[in-house]
Amino acid sequence: MSRSVTVGVDFGGTNIKVGCVTPRGRVVRRLVLPTRAHTTPETFLDGVEGAIARLCAALTIRRSQVRGVGVGVAGLVDGSRGVIYRLVNVPGGWEGVALRRLLERRLRCPCAIENDVNAVALGEWRFGAGRGTRHSVYVTLGTGVGGGLVVDGKLVRGIAGTAGEIGHTGVRLNGPRCACGRRGCLEAFVGTAGIVRRARQAIRAGNRPLERLAARHGGRLSPELVSRAARAGDRAAREIWQEVGCYLGAALANVVNLLSPERIVIGGGVAGAWPWFRGRLRATVRELAFAVPARACQIVRAQLGDDAGIIGGAMLVEEGR
Amino acid sequence: MSRSVTVGVDFGGTNIKVGCVTPRGRVVRRLVLPTRAHTTPETFLDGVEGAIARLCAALTIRRSQVRGVGVGVAGLVDGSRGVIYRLVNVPGGWEGVALRRLLERRLRCPCAIENDVNAVALGEWRFGAGRGTRHSVYVTLGTGVGGGLVVDGKLVRGIAGTAGEIGHTGVRLNGPRCACGRRGCLEAFVGTAGIVRRARQAIRAGNRPLERLAARHGGRLSPELVSRAARAGDRAAREIWQEVGCYLGAALANVVNLLSPERIVIGGGVAGAWPWFRGRLRATVRELAFAVPARACQIVRAQLGDDAGIIGGAMLVEEGR
Repeated sequence: MSRSVTVGVDFGGTNIKVGCVTPRGRVVRRLVLPTRAHTTPETFLDGVEGAIARLCAALTIRRSQVRGVGVGVAGLVDGSRGVIYRLVNVPGGWEGVALRRLLERRLRCPCAIENDVNAVALGEWRFGAGRGTRHSVYVTLGTGVGGGLVVDGKLVRGIAGTAGEIGHTGVRLNGPRCACGRRGCLEAFVGTAGIVRRARQAIRAGNRPLERLAARHGGRLSPELVSRAARAGDRAAREIWQEVGCYLGAALANVVNLLSPERIVIGGGVAGAWPWFRGRLRATVRELAFAVPARACQIVRAQLGDDAGIIGGAMLVEEGR
Repeated sequence: MSRSVTVGVDFGGTNIKVGCVTPRGRVVRRLVLPTRAHTTPETFLDGVEGAIARLCAALTIRRSQVRGVGVGVAGLVDGSRGVIYRLVNVPGGWEGVALRRLLERRLRCPCAIENDVNAVALGEWRFGAGRGTRHSVYVTLGTGVGGGLVVDGKLVRGIAGTAGEIGHTGVRLNGPRCACGRRGCLEAFVGTAGIVRRARQAIRAGNRPLERLAARHGGRLSPELVSRAARAGDRAAREIWQEVGCYLGAALANVVNLLSPERIVIGGGVAGAWPWFRGRLRATVRELAFAVPARACQIVRAQLGDDAGIIGGAMLVEEGR
C-alpha cells in the first residue's frame, strides 16, 4: 500500500477539522482545532501546519508523503484564483486574502481552497452518494442552505467562483424574510430558521407535542425536535416536513430543468429528517420538472457524514492535478 | 484561404435553413426549404442532401470540402447520443429516431444534432454576443422561452441531454397557466402568449393606443405591436415590458447564483423589445442575486440574428472534434 495521503481541512465557524485521506477517500486520521484560537490568516496557517505535523507523526509518515492540502471554508471564495472574498462567522481580516498562495508558501506542497459546500459536493460526487455519476448536484440543509454542482466530473465555479448558491433561489414572491435580506428565498423555508418559525406557528396554533418537546429543551426548538415529533406521529410536525419537501422540490425542479443532473444528493444537519420529506420532495420534482430529465435524475441522501468536509477538502487537491 | 466549410442546419416548424459556415463563423451561402415538404426522417435527409449538393455547386467546392453537418432541431433531443425524443411542430414519426447516425450514413461526414436553442447558445458563445467568455448563458424569448448553457467552453447537456430549459422555471406559485400545463412558469409571463395576454388586459382596462394598433392589424396583438406602442410612448405598453424585465430578472437571478455566468445573452423575436426591458432586467438581477456573481455578469442582447441557427448548427460539429 502506498502511504501517501492528501490532507483535507474543513474550516468552519466553530471547529477546524484536519484529516489525512487515502487515494480511495478513506479518512485514516483526523484532529480538531477550535476556530477561536485560529481566526487570523497567520494563526490559521500555524494551526494547520502544526496539525499536519502531528498527523504525520501519528501515522509515522514523512511530510513529503503528503500529496497536497485542500481547504474548504465557510464563506465566499474564488477557488480558481485561490482568494477569499469573505468568511461567514470568522472575524480576523480575511477579505481578499490569497489563502492558497499563503498555504503553498508555508506548506511547500500543492494546495487548494474552495467554498466548503463546493468541497463537500466534490467529495460526495467522488466517494459518496454521487459516486459513479457524471453530473451531480449537492444540496446542504442546515442553518444555511447551499449547493455545489459537478458537471462532466468537474466542479462548476463560474466566473466569480461562487457558483452553486441554490439557497437563495426565490421560491415565493413576498415570502418570509431571509437571512440574506431578501424575501421568499428557499433558505427562508427549509433552513433551520424557517423550520423553527413553522414549529412556533404550530405551537401557537395549539400543538401540544411540539410544545412539550420544546419545554423539555429549555424552550429551544430545532429541526431535530421537529423530526422527533414527526417520528412520534405528530401530524403538525409531519406537515412541516411535507412543506420542506414542497419548497425544496420547487427549487430542485428548476435545477433539474436547467442542468439535467444524474443525481441530486441531499446533506447537512436538517437532512436527518430525510424520511419525513423525501417522498414529497421527489413527488414535487416529478410534478414540476419536465418528465425526461426528472425521470433521469435520482434524489438521494448524502453518505459521507461528519467526514464529508475533510474528504471534500482533500478532493480539491486531487481535482486540480 | 482554405475553402472548407461546415454545414449548419436549422430545422424549424416552418422552414429548414441550410447554410455553409466558414471556420470563422461567417455564413457564405444559405438556402431555405419548406418544412412541410420534409417532415419524415427520410424526406428530411433527402432535403438536406440535395441542399448541400446545391450549396457546394454554388460555391464551386467539392463535397469533400464539407467538414461536417450539424443540425439544430426544435424539440427534445439527446445530443450526446444523437437521438430525438420528440419534435415540436413537426409530425412524421420522429420519436426515438437516431438522426445523427442516419445523417452520417447518408452524408458520409461527421454529423451532430442538438436542440436548436442549445445550438444557438453555442453559436452566440463562439461568434456572437458571448464571444471571449468561458461561461455564457443564452436565453431565447419568443413563442417559447428556452435556454442553453456553456460552462468552461462546453455546452452543458446533462444526463438526459435536455439541460438549459429555463422557460419553465417557476417564478410565481399559482401564476397563470403555461403552455406546458403548469402554472407560473417564466414562459407564461415573458413568452409571446404572456405578453399578448397582458396587452389584452390593458385594452380591457381602457388602453386606446394598443387597441388602435391591434385594430389596424386585424385585431391580432403581438409583442412587436406592444413594442411599437412602447416606442410611441404608451405608458401601459412600457409597463408590460417592465414586468417582462422583472420576471425574467427573477429567473435569471437564480441562474446567476447557481452558475455565476460571465455573460447572459438574450435573443429570440421578443428580444426586439430589448430597449424597453433591459433596464429593469438588469436592476432586478442586481437586486435579487448575490452581489459578487451579479457584478461579474453582463446581460447583453444576442448578435447573430437570422443566421444564429445556421452558425449554431455548424458549431455543433466543431465542438465535437
